[in-house]
Amino acid sequence: MAREHFEDVEVGETRTFGEREVTREEILEFAERYDPQPFHTDETAAADSLFGGLIASGWHTAAMTMELLVTNVFTDLAATGALGVDELRWPSPVRPGDTLTVHTEVIDTEPWNEELGLVRSRTTTLVDGDEVMSMVGLVLYERRER
Amino acid sequence: MAREHFEDVEVGETRTFGEREVTREEILEFAERYDPQPFHTDETAAADSLFGGLIASGWHTAAMTMELLVTNVFTDLAATGALGVDELRWPSPVRPGDTLTVHTEVIDTEPWNEELGLVRSRTTTLVDGDEVMSMVGLVLYERRER
Repeated sequence: MAREHFEDVEVGETRTFGEREVTREEILEFAERYDPQPFHTDETAAADSLFGGLIASGWHTAAMTMELLVTNVFTDLAATGALGVDELRWPSPVRPGDTLTVHTEVIDTEPWNEELGLVRSRTTTLVDGDEVMSMVGLVLYERRER
Repeated sequence: MAREHFEDVEVGETRTFGEREVTREEILEFAERYDPQPFHTDETAAADSLFGGLIASGWHTAAMTMELLVTNVFTDLAATGALGVDELRWPSPVRPGDTLTVHTEVIDTEPWNEELGLVRSRTTTLVDGDEVMSMVGLVLYERRER
């Protein structure tokens, strides 16, 4: 299948995909291992926190967003890895039972070297239409051989 | 124990901590679930990639860095959650057997509201002194009651 290379990417291109449920068990499992703050690991402490109940680690939301990107989109792209991410924000919490959807929009492209081009995309993670995470990903794509 | 509140934080304050080994099993487990790109999940494909061998998902490196922050530092802080992260970068890959250390430096503080203050810290994750990840964290701290 023809994968989308750097030259094929158009600024303004959008995609919306994914319908991924977040379970209580997975929130606890991720948090106990990687982000053991009480509002991520302990129902009672979470109820007494600013958040009023258990919420997913922001890094867990990022990991689940990556899962949706890789399984829905990356197989169609000649993407070779990311330099990084700018403006990562968690404007509202993810709670047990929420369903995540992802929206991406290409905001900028520039050649990187002979083989690769850099694509900046704004990626937004949504629950019932509300933003729970946003970021600008800096991903390198292969250029077509000339 | 007296936890460090917003008023106690000083720009330029640094901390270095952690000695966390990254195993092959954990790289594969995280990647199969959240970032199933071949250079994270498949030894043979990874050997043929730009990276020349299996590397950890950048999101896994972020999660392990968070683990080191929470278990070494956050218990001493009146931190209540993060707004987000700027300038997240993965300048070199993390490989099986690497040991992660974290360095933080407070770069800026500003009052946020009556109860909270915002602290910006540059966080660098290192393997044998080389940067494998860097980011600027935006963390809210409780202010002391007045």
